[in-house]
Formats: sequence, structure tokens, C-alpha cells
Amino acid sequence: MKETLESDQLSEWYNKVIKEAGLVDQGLARGTIVLRPYGFALWKGIQSYLGNSIQEREVEDVYFPAIVPEKFLTKEKEHIEGFAPEFLRVQGRGGIIGVLRPTSEAAMYPLFSKWIKSYKDLPLKINQWCNVFRDELRTYAFMRTSEFLWQEGHCSFANSKENEKAVMDYLEMYKDTFEKLLAVSPVFGKKSEKEKFAGAFYTTTGEAMMPNGKALQVCTSHNLGTNFSKAYDIQYLDKDGKRKYVYQTSWGFSWRAIGAMILTHGDKKGLILPPNIAPIQIVVIPIRDGKADVEKSAENIKDRLNAFRVKVDLTDGRPGQLYYKNELKGIPLRIEIGPRDLVKDQVILVDRLTGEKENVSNNDLKEKVAEKLDLIQRELLERSKKLVEDNTHDVDSWQEFTQLLKGKQGFLRTYHCGDRKCEETIQKETKATLRCIPYGYEQTEGICVKCGKKSVYGQKVLFAKAY
Amino acid sequence: MKETLESDQLSEWYNKVIKEAGLVDQGLARGTIVLRPYGFALWKGIQSYLGNSIQEREVEDVYFPAIVPEKFLTKEKEHIEGFAPEFLRVQGRGGIIGVLRPTSEAAMYPLFSKWIKSYKDLPLKINQWCNVFRDELRTYAFMRTSEFLWQEGHCSFANSKENEKAVMDYLEMYKDTFEKLLAVSPVFGKKSEKEKFAGAFYTTTGEAMMPNGKALQVCTSHNLGTNFSKAYDIQYLDKDGKRKYVYQTSWGFSWRAIGAMILTHGDKKGLILPPNIAPIQIVVIPIRDGKADVEKSAENIKDRLNAFRVKVDLTDGRPGQLYYKNELKGIPLRIEIGPRDLVKDQVILVDRLTGEKENVSNNDLKEKVAEKLDLIQRELLERSKKLVEDNTHDVDSWQEFTQLLKGKQGFLRTYHCGDRKCEETIQKETKATLRCIPYGYEQTEGICVKCGKKSVYGQKVLFAKAY
Repeated sequence: MKETLESDQLSEWYNKVIKEAGLVDQGLARGTIVLRPYGFALWKGIQSYLGNSIQEREVEDVYFPAIVPEKFLTKEKEHIEGFAPEFLRVQGRGGIIGVLRPTSEAAMYPLFSKWIKSYKDLPLKINQWCNVFRDELRTYAFMRTSEFLWQEGHCSFANSKENEKAVMDYLEMYKDTFEKLLAVSPVFGKKSEKEKFAGAFYTTTGEAMMPNGKALQVCTSHNLGTNFSKAYDIQYLDKDGKRKYVYQTSWGFSWRAIGAMILTHGDKKGLILPPNIAPIQIVVIPIRDGKADVEKSAENIKDRLNAFRVKVDLTDGRPGQLYYKNELKGIPLRIEIGPRDLVKDQVILVDRLTGEKENVSNNDLKEKVAEKLDLIQRELLERSKKLVEDNTHDVDSWQEFTQLLKGKQGFLRTYHCGDRKCEETIQKETKATLRCIPYGYEQTEGICVKCGKKSVYGQKVLFAKAY
Repeated sequence: MKETLESDQLSEWYNKVIKEAGLVDQGLARGTIVLRPYGFALWKGIQSYLGNSIQEREVEDVYFPAIVPEKFLTKEKEHIEGFAPEFLRVQGRGGIIGVLRPTSEAAMYPLFSKWIKSYKDLPLKINQWCNVFRDELRTYAFMRTSEFLWQEGHCSFANSKENEKAVMDYLEMYKDTFEKLLAVSPVFGKKSEKEKFAGAFYTTTGEAMMPNGKALQVCTSHNLGTNFSKAYDIQYLDKDGKRKYVYQTSWGFSWRAIGAMILTHGDKKGLILPPNIAPIQIVVIPIRDGKADVEKSAENIKDRLNAFRVKVDLTDGRPGQLYYKNELKGIPLRIEIGPRDLVKDQVILVDRLTGEKENVSNNDLKEKVAEKLDLIQRELLERSKKLVEDNTHDVDSWQEFTQLLKGKQGFLRTYHCGDRKCEETIQKETKATLRCIPYGYEQTEGICVKCGKKSVYGQKVLFAKAY
């Protein structure tokens, strides 16, 4: 049912569900959110999975200060222009001391300039999990808030090729996290010049499809080239005795991914959490009749299923109320155990995704649960892929383009001339933006859907309205 | 040698070592530090160990916004007076939007007031790992910086007894972390009224002894009583149908613990890291003569010792330079392997703490290394305990008190009347403060070392100058 909701209702559904499921609450300061234990557990799941991937790539964790004196932020001209309107400034006893980091290029790179002296100091690969700040006018939980949590990686390499390879490797790492952990299948590609990160040479991105057909940018990996190393004077002495600028990447993954995951999978009953990220994979509900010792049996089941994240729900309430509450929380599997099941040495296993109920003997339970969780994880990813496919439309004419945006929306796959002004016109007239030039598309030629000039990308691109 | 350094030289030693060992660098904004990979690894070690202890106590991780509107900070009168001078304010497009959290009571408790309705909602036990901000005038790496990292726990209970028990349990958890992980042995006790946390009912603390005889407060667990629940209106409906205020604790452990650990254990060669926290427990240095395949053997040793955190140092340089560098970094054990050792199927094992060298056959290596690491960990803790014992002096007269503070300093164990004014006079005249009323001391009566009035604490207390 969620899939058919109009944009406004989808937002309403979202705001209601994340609050009622106990993920978030509103913060005291405007445009901030509080991550409650159930919500923070999702972020911890991401930190654990993605953190491992980062570590495997020999990128080391660090921590840089949140406050950056403004003079360091103004070194890269495009960068400052991109972020200045969103600055939050910090005032101490003696006046303004700096800006709260909107991202940490300006906080880190002056130190890179000190640390990198020789080719022996390269590559320098660091990452931090931290809060960042942007003074947003319109805020939306997980998607756009004045403060948000993310991970930002910053790497410096001796040569362009290695740097380029790294950009794609980090994007690949994000893809893996979305698919394997969050069961979300964004489209990955390159941003246009207009849409790239302020100061980047180019930006690569993941664009997720929301159920209302809108696009959500869910991660980015930037090739900064030598733009920042020139601005911050990050040079190394090469083997050949010459001083050279380093090539750089920066790449970020924020809690917005949680928002994308929620919107992708949820249904009218509430959240549906992919088993790999679900803080609770299985909830066991004893159906008490005051006689049989179902509570003890429920605990036994938990012990037997200790390879999984299991919770026994012993709170008060009729079974129906408990089902409702745990469905809202998106727990992938529910096990009901009543007095009659005790006698039969079985339980009832309920699938959150399909609602199917099944009697399972205690002997088979462990195997069955593993199988089911795996199935749900794969099915959710398949659905996400199908959502993208079903809502990606090949568009040949401007009429078709505008027509589709009035209706079901989706990703509009078409040609574009590559001209920034033409892109701006499209945005002005339709609110749609060029989301990305996808990787893996067939190399084809065509004419711009808007102005009729020859396409510059050698392939089709995706336009969509942003969520 | 460090132990005999005067205060000024100790600071110089400290600032030099933490920078040269690659733990930290200076941040761009005044009074901030950057945690480089080796430094952040120490913080991660604490997060992992202490994080487990927190989880075992069923305290759940959350995240609250860093910016708190000022009106929420002014609710608890003592609290605001304590922190107001150190506020850093945040200015957005529309003016000041709030204060950067100096601690999160004011950020969290208005929400607790929403979440806690019934006795069924209790206890509420949450924790967050985050950055906090205080506009410090004089800053010092890890010890006092404008921004620092910490963990802050906030719990609400239905009754005073449970709350009181929790205060001590969290303090006990900190004690365990200091002793088992960091091999530091602070004195634990209660703060005087003058020294307690602004707004607390009472504060418990850990006071570590620095090698120059000064005291460093390294953690606190506060009993907030109902002070904050009354200020923020956190009430629950009890089983008896009455509305009651919750009892609260808050407790914090910051990266200052890293500073304490460094000062406690280091020597003239640099850091000495306790094996349980050391990011690298063993460094293997192949002594290359260009012939024998020592590098491969070094890698083999690493593989064989995969139960430990081992690094093979293949950087350029003479062996002596590499020894120097790795000693500076405080790596507990060094393994040297040269061509001659290859033939004898042995290595040379060097103890960072004692400098002792030992030939160890490859067969015995794993066992020997485990034994040595365990020994170093225990020895460091013993030394820390001895440092406290050797520098704690029973003081009976004011003359003795002032004399000792001019000399070797240390903890001055004496009686105090409990009067705030008298405490202030002592501080004004000597700069010494009442560090704590230690737990586990004999119950004895005596007269105040300063004013001669009867002691109020029923035991001796500790005075010292703060590091």
C-alpha cells in the first residue's frame, strides 16, 4: 500500500512510523533529531559493517575537531561557495572562533600539508565517524537535518590513476553496504558538472529510488583531483626529486541511508528491516494462558537460537497488540508459542514480509529460521531492484518528460547535451535534476531531450525529482 | 627519570612525546587537538572495552543533538552557574540557535520527561559516545580542550536505593577499565560539596596520581537525586497511583584517561602502553643484511602470533633508529630477527618496560610472548599503585601540609571540617583542593588540618594540587 501513496502521504507515513517504532524523536534545537536506542542500533549496524570494509581497505580511523576557523574554509573557492550559506558559526568568550564542519576537507587538509612530505608518506588514507553541521532551512528526519552523523574518508595518493581507482573502490564498498546490509539497490553513476560536490574534480554517487518515484542521493565518492592539494599546498617530494601535488578522494556515507532503507522496505504495518541490519531479527511471543509454562519455553527458544538476535517480548498486552507493536518495529520474524504448541513441541513462525504463518517443529527451527532470514534479505533486495526497474522510463521527447513528472514520476532515462544552462532550465521548469550518468549503461548517441543538441555523455543519463 | 621531573619538564615531556609518537597534532581552532590513527586507536580500545561493560549493564546507546537551545540549559540553577562561562554558542542564518553541549543533561532530560510516563518505563538507561564543548582558557592535550570526546551515561530509576547502587556500579565499571585496561590505579571516592558536579546531589570520582605528585580527576559518576527531575519535570505514575519524580545518575569517562595513562607509564624513551590497550602489542624488526630472508621470517612470526596485535616494521633505517622509534611509540614487546637467529631458529625478545633482551626459540615464542605481555600489564598496574602509595602522606599539621606542597607534593591524607569556606581558604593559600573523600578508608575522628574544628567526614580525606 505504501508504494501507491502520493508524496505527501508517504512523508506522513514516514514521520509517523519512525517515531512510533521508537527510532527517533525531535531534538530540542530546530531541525535536529534524537536517535533513540532502536534507531541508534541501526547506525551501529552500519558502523560495524561499513567500518569493517573501511578497515579492510587499510584506511585508518582518526578524529579531527568539529570547529574550523573560517579562514581555512575559504581556500578552495568553489568549495566555500557551495557551503557558505549553510555555515553554523561558533561564538566563544572572545567572539567567533570558527565554523562547525559541514564536511572536513578544510579541517583536515592544512594538516595533510604538514604530514605529507615525501612519497614515503603516501598513500595517506584516513576516515572519521562524526557529526557534521549544515544550517538547513527545511529539515526532514535522517534526510536533511542541521546536524547529522556520517563517515567521511579522505585519501591522498601520489598519482592520478591510483586515486581514480580508489574513488571507484569506495563507491563499490558503498554499493556492497547498500545491497548486502540494507537490501537497497541504488543506481551508481557520475554527477554532472552542475551537480558535483563543491570543489571536486568529479563526483560519483548512489541514487536510490523512493516508492513515490523520487530520487535520493544516498552516498558520494569524490575525485578531488589536485583541486584541494593546490588550494591547501599538499605536496610531496617524489623519487625523481621533484615536488608534486597529491591526488585526493573524499567519500561520505550518512545516516540518510537509514531513511532510504525505511522508505524502500516499509509497508502499511510499519517498518520492515532487512535481517542483516535488524537489531532484533526474531521476536518470540509467549501466548500466556496462566497455566502452561510458555515463558520458560520462550526463553529456551531464545537460547537455542543464540546464533541470531532474538528478543522475548514479555510486556503486557493481548497477543494482537504485541503482534502489532513488533510488526511496526519491522522485526523480520515472529515466533508465537502457546500452550498447545508446547504439547506438540512446535512453534508458529510468522514472516513479516509476507505475513505467512507456518508450524515449525522445534527440531527444525534453527535451520528454518536461518533459511527464512536469508530469504527475506534476498527478497527485499529483489524488490528494491524491481522498484528501480519498474520506475525507470526511457524518454525520447520533452512532452513525454514533463508528462511523466506529473504522473508516476520515476527515473527518466534520456539523452542530455551536457550544457549547464540547459540543465538549469530543465530544473526550473520541472524541478527534475540530472541525478547521474549511470555506470554500466550501453554506449549510445542521441539528442538532448530538452534542447535537441547532440548528447555529450555517449550514453543515456537519469533525470528525476529529488525526494 | 620521568618520575623525578619537575612539573614544567613533565609537561614538556608529555607534549613532545604525544606528538612524536604520532598520537595527536594541534587542531586549527584554538585549544583543539587532532587524534591521528595511533591516538584514535587508543580511544577505540577504550570504546570497545568500556562499551562492552556498558552493554553488559543493559545501558543502551543513543545519540542526542550537539546543539541545545539555551533556555533548556537554564532550568537547573546550579548547573547553569557551573557551566555558563564555558558556553560556546552557535549562530545560524537567523541568529543564535543554541549552545554546544558542555554535557547533555539539558539536552536529554526534556525528552526523558516525555518518554517516562509510568513505572513500566523505568529504569531508563542510556549512553552516548560523543563530542562535548567547553570554552577553556588554558588548554592541554587530552586534559583540557575546547572540544573533547567522551562517553556520558544517563539513567533514571524509580527509587533512590536503586539509583544509589547504580552510581557505585558505574564507578566500579570505571575502576575496572582503569585497572584492567589502562593499568592505572586512581583513588575512588566522593567529592566535597564544593567540588561536586554543578547540580548534582553528590559526585563520585576517580583521582589519579601523576608522576609529579599532582592529582588528575579521570572519571565521575554523579548521583543527581531528584535535582534534575524536578527541574525538568520527569515524573512517573507509580503502581500506587501517585506521580513521583525519578532519581537520576549521570556518569562520564573522557579521553583524559588517555592523558592519565601516558603520564603514569611513560619514561624517558617515550610512551609505555599497557599491552591490553596497545594498538600494537609486538613489533617485529627484521635485521636485514641483504642476504638471508629475514623479512619473510618476520611475516611468519606475525602469522604465528596472530592471537596478538603484531606489526612488522619494514621501514627504512638502521636497526637502532627503528628501535628508538618503536620504543617512543610504547610498543610493549619488540622481536628482533637477524640472519644468525634464522639459523638458530630463535628470535630476540625485548621488553619495553625493563629493556631486558632474551633469546627465545621459535617453539616457545607464543607462550613466552603471552606470559611477557601479561607480566608487563600487571607490573604497570603495580607501579601505578606504588606511585599512589609512595606519594600519599599522612598530614597532621598545617605546617606539614604547606611544606609538603612546596616539595614533592602528592596526596595529603588528613582531616577536614567539611566547611566550604575553610576549603576555599586552603585552595587560596596553597592551590590544593579536596580531591575526594576516599572509599574504603578506616572510620576515624580527627580535627581539621586547617581550622582545627572537628572533622565531619568520619574519616580522612585527600588534598592535592590538580595537574
